[in-house]
Amino acid sequence: MIIVLKPGASEEQIKHIIDRVEELGLQHTVSRGTERTIVGVIGEEDVVRIQPLEAFPGVERVMEVLKPYKLVSREFHPADTIIDVNGIKVGGRRIVVIAGPCAIENRQMLEDIAKEVKRFGALMLRGGAFKPRSSPYTFQGLGEEGLKYIREIGSQTGLPVVTEVMDTRDVELVMKYADIIQIGARNMQNFNLLKEVGKVDKPILLKRGLMATVKELLMSAEYILSQGNFKVILCERGIRTFEDSTRNTTDISAVPVIKRESHLPVLVDPSHATGKWNLVGPVSKAAVAIGADGLLVEVHNQPEKALSDGVQSLLPRKFGEMMEILKPIAKSVGRSL
Amino acid sequence: MIIVLKPGASEEQIKHIIDRVEELGLQHTVSRGTERTIVGVIGEEDVVRIQPLEAFPGVERVMEVLKPYKLVSREFHPADTIIDVNGIKVGGRRIVVIAGPCAIENRQMLEDIAKEVKRFGALMLRGGAFKPRSSPYTFQGLGEEGLKYIREIGSQTGLPVVTEVMDTRDVELVMKYADIIQIGARNMQNFNLLKEVGKVDKPILLKRGLMATVKELLMSAEYILSQGNFKVILCERGIRTFEDSTRNTTDISAVPVIKRESHLPVLVDPSHATGKWNLVGPVSKAAVAIGADGLLVEVHNQPEKALSDGVQSLLPRKFGEMMEILKPIAKSVGRSL
Amino acid sequence: MIIVLKPGASEEQIKHIIDRVEELGLQHTVSRGTERTIVGVIGEEDVVRIQPLEAFPGVERVMEVLKPYKLVSREFHPADTIIDVNGIKVGGRRIVVIAGPCAIENRQMLEDIAKEVKRFGALMLRGGAFKPRSSPYTFQGLGEEGLKYIREIGSQTGLPVVTEVMDTRDVELVMKYADIIQIGARNMQNFNLLKEVGKVDKPILLKRGLMATVKELLMSAEYILSQGNFKVILCERGIRTFEDSTRNTTDISAVPVIKRESHLPVLVDPSHATGKWNLVGPVSKAAVAIGADGLLVEVHNQPEKALSDGVQSLLPRKFGEMMEILKPIAKSVGRSL
Amino acid sequence: MIIVLKPGASEEQIKHIIDRVEELGLQHTVSRGTERTIVGVIGEEDVVRIQPLEAFPGVERVMEVLKPYKLVSREFHPADTIIDVNGIKVGGRRIVVIAGPCAIENRQMLEDIAKEVKRFGALMLRGGAFKPRSSPYTFQGLGEEGLKYIREIGSQTGLPVVTEVMDTRDVELVMKYADIIQIGARNMQNFNLLKEVGKVDKPILLKRGLMATVKELLMSAEYILSQGNFKVILCERGIRTFEDSTRNTTDISAVPVIKRESHLPVLVDPSHATGKWNLVGPVSKAAVAIGADGLLVEVHNQPEKALSDGVQSLLPRKFGEMMEILKPIAKSVGRSL
Repeated sequence: MIIVLKPGASEEQIKHIIDRVEELGLQHTVSRGTERTIVGVIGEEDVVRIQPLEAFPGVERVMEVLKPYKLVSREFHPADTIIDVNGIKVGGRRIVVIAGPCAIENRQMLEDIAKEVKRFGALMLRGGAFKPRSSPYTFQGLGEEGLKYIREIGSQTGLPVVTEVMDTRDVELVMKYADIIQIGARNMQNFNLLKEVGKVDKPILLKRGLMATVKELLMSAEYILSQGNFKVILCERGIRTFEDSTRNTTDISAVPVIKRESHLPVLVDPSHATGKWNLVGPVSKAAVAIGADGLLVEVHNQPEKALSDGVQSLLPRKFGEMMEILKPIAKSVGRSL
Repeated sequence: MIIVLKPGASEEQIKHIIDRVEELGLQHTVSRGTERTIVGVIGEEDVVRIQPLEAFPGVERVMEVLKPYKLVSREFHPADTIIDVNGIKVGGRRIVVIAGPCAIENRQMLEDIAKEVKRFGALMLRGGAFKPRSSPYTFQGLGEEGLKYIREIGSQTGLPVVTEVMDTRDVELVMKYADIIQIGARNMQNFNLLKEVGKVDKPILLKRGLMATVKELLMSAEYILSQGNFKVILCERGIRTFEDSTRNTTDISAVPVIKRESHLPVLVDPSHATGKWNLVGPVSKAAVAIGADGLLVEVHNQPEKALSDGVQSLLPRKFGEMMEILKPIAKSVGRSL
Repeated sequence: MIIVLKPGASEEQIKHIIDRVEELGLQHTVSRGTERTIVGVIGEEDVVRIQPLEAFPGVERVMEVLKPYKLVSREFHPADTIIDVNGIKVGGRRIVVIAGPCAIENRQMLEDIAKEVKRFGALMLRGGAFKPRSSPYTFQGLGEEGLKYIREIGSQTGLPVVTEVMDTRDVELVMKYADIIQIGARNMQNFNLLKEVGKVDKPILLKRGLMATVKELLMSAEYILSQGNFKVILCERGIRTFEDSTRNTTDISAVPVIKRESHLPVLVDPSHATGKWNLVGPVSKAAVAIGADGLLVEVHNQPEKALSDGVQSLLPRKFGEMMEILKPIAKSVGRSL
Repeated sequence: MIIVLKPGASEEQIKHIIDRVEELGLQHTVSRGTERTIVGVIGEEDVVRIQPLEAFPGVERVMEVLKPYKLVSREFHPADTIIDVNGIKVGGRRIVVIAGPCAIENRQMLEDIAKEVKRFGALMLRGGAFKPRSSPYTFQGLGEEGLKYIREIGSQTGLPVVTEVMDTRDVELVMKYADIIQIGARNMQNFNLLKEVGKVDKPILLKRGLMATVKELLMSAEYILSQGNFKVILCERGIRTFEDSTRNTTDISAVPVIKRESHLPVLVDPSHATGKWNLVGPVSKAAVAIGADGLLVEVHNQPEKALSDGVQSLLPRKFGEMMEILKPIAKSVGRSL
């Protein structure tokens, strides 16, 4: 931690800061420049982090030196984390495509879609039973009924299933049915929910909030790891910006940034990132090329009648075409699909 | 709902859209311009809203005509809603200042601060027992112990108390102690939590998410009202932008925008909006002048030792000075403080 | 400047950095913490700023300690700068309201509007002869003809006139007619234009770019001052964010932030900041309360027929009403209007 | 154009709007729904666009149906535009890599870098003689001297050269030396400059402003085409968002969005988009995979001593490695490099 003092900071103010630093059991260095005096704090930064040092008289600015996350960092765990989900490895050489409808609407449609996406190369099935919807008047998901359907169809097709939990009260329930538990973008900073899924022994798919920095995403993952669950898969799904030609702006460079900072696998969700089915293919190409470990794609066999996110869903046939296009790109970067 | 067709849309495509509109029991008009054909849909827009019409062949764009919220709108309820909290009216002529520490750290500090803010004119006491913190390693609040303290001190000082609930499992507990239940910015789209607090008979203070539009804030309020609880107080607390000289950017014009769209009262939280104690006063002046119904201000008697948000907390004395400065401004816009 | 090294930085890498610092004639301190080594650079930060130190092997991050602006800063000039424009003082106790149409459309309309705004208390007249328009097919301004009109009407009414220059080739021309030369938001980083107006002996009204930080605004002002022209008036006019209920988001706290950092006067332009005539009044109230030195308001006597920005223009009568409402607010914060 | 009226709009207000529409020589349709009346305007939307219809009494909202750009649109020109620059085709099957230093610092360095980038497969040379710098105290470019160097070295190596013009007064000068004239991000809405380069017979490389939407970028291109110059190459170079782990956020999906809307070629500048040399490679991979027609890459042989943007410059050797990695990706999407 570096404490930059105001030009006119008094000796008394400097002493007051140093006293506080010493009280916390830390060491310090004082460097007196021509225009500013700087106090460097050496030791466990966490102890100082919670101190509102900027509120101290004479302080102009406080700059953090260390990263606020530990367990998720490359420094802590230099090798890539590979997460095994019923034999499918997330984070390895093979790019894992997870596909399925936004919401589970009924058993039949889910079964039909599951068979199709499997045929075209998807390795896992996605589908929501609990849906976060901005309006209270729209379809909110089938709840446990939906969970049962996805479990059955997952087992039937041999595809591990990914489904979302939105409520701390439902973690136990979702645990019974899911192979991977998803934390949606709007819950990325639902810290109680993070703590709950940090206690379970299932992989967690943590989606980046649309207002969250990469650093905050990593901090949310840190919540989960800090409870003992190290099986966390991150997912870039677009951030909110001023650009309105797409639903969100895909932060494609977040993939290499996260890869550098963390050992956890990273997926890209091109459906939510763009909000338009005809951009899902292009963004998937970019994601594969830049090094994403997988894709999360919305597929629906009747997008025109989808109860949720039909506009961004691919028809199974289009999904199949996209998979064919992605294969040589994966190969060109040393991966398979 | 207005459906704009692509330049080359075929008659068959147009018919397909019209058929779907009729299936939904709605009327339509077709307008053929020189460059585009447009289908207007007349009737309950909600029925159409969930249809992914943009996924239909031949469709270029779909534009909504009606607002997605109803119960929170001025159209539904033209008069200002005034919410009575133990005799204190939120949304009336008097500007309601709610003050207190970010987190309840212990009984004594809360009592000391409560007495001070009361002396200087605060009408309610704030303080968090459950704290949403971006790091799992920082102080997470005292939990029920904190709730007991704030209840006791609220009753002792005669100040109604505002405290946050973060988890659906805690709603019942917080209900027992709080006079107003706060939903924090990070939970503005925690829809299950919104539904839970929509069922209780207590006023809800709903804070705007830091990446939420005014429309989304109103939709989240709609969730609460749709469950039967009409006592919702909204709060602008700054949005996330590229500007980094402040923690967030106060969207001051959100106050008149919300006032025009909705009948609900609106507060401003200058502490979170700016993240700096020396900007709390200036932004409070702007908030009072522009028509906010109240302020939510962080006050701490030892900001240097605060376990949370010390940098943006005012000393009680500074809070008192600010209140004196705000009084003539309130008067100049026909309000009192 | 603080140079934070990577965890595994070698002694050789540290030496390489120190050698470079010494080559630049600067001093350094090395502080070896448990997790990071830090090199502090003491001396003229500008010399180091242009060095791409982050490109050096072993460097994790470089943090600036000093501000990149000098002449515009409070440190350089602690007292408020007051700019005299034909006897009207910008930056003093009196809040200066500058009003007029967005574009000068013809002589008559400008004269009519000028008389009206003067009657209601405006101290200066605004009007554009060169208009930056996002479409090449819309009205681009009357050019020199417009400049002549505003000069004549300014002299006739006794109102100093403010008008925009968009092109380095037009600075000399605009100089002949204007009392204050405006640099528009889209030209805030047109550095050649800044240099040109830095050489003239006229006050410059520099508008904040819609995606510019406060720091960048101050750097652009620094360009003007560095050429010898210290008469710069800054103007907050809204920034671009994700919120779409207003044209831009008024960054109201930029006013006190700038006031703290700089000695230059600051205006607010509520017309561009909101893009809606019915929000001009509310935002003006907030601007006066928070300490703006003036307002820049669009007024048009026939907004329905305005060739530019009619939607955000006030009718003269509405402008008059607003002025009456602002007077007591100004008084309540120790200013007059 | 669709005009949505307020719930209580009077017949008189509707008539007033219709009268105005008819005055403009346009047709209209009126559609009376249960909750809103809507007026559709048929005909040249440009005529109506400049009318501030939202300022009319009774109007709630105005929604545009047609795009504001024409000449740049796919509707106007369905086939891809391919621009020939001394025999090199921009917009064709081959991906065009343009490389070189940010600023031309002296003749020797430019020559050395030019030879290197040519050797590794760059097809054109970039280098700035006029540099837009946010600080007046940093290197501003060599001016005409720099132009001479890049011309000589371009001719010597056979690489067409790209260099920026920042000032309307310099267009003629730059014309003499450049093969492609660049308009930088900060000048994307310098409309006078756009008009000037619209009159010349040279290809223009138009970079997206860091605060500009795709629509605004296309409108700026429309300025150039509307003056007669159809040889415009667009360039995505990152937009400003809240994310701070990169200098800007690469809006990768802008590439397919622009390709759909417009016939003009699109490049990506990974150096400015990320601001970090170690992200240039990853983002280049994504750009090639998603369909960019070329890359604009900063290369410097001594990044540690670069006078501008050293942090984001690749060493020639690293550039060469990247080119090798990009080749199979280009091939996998049916292009060559």
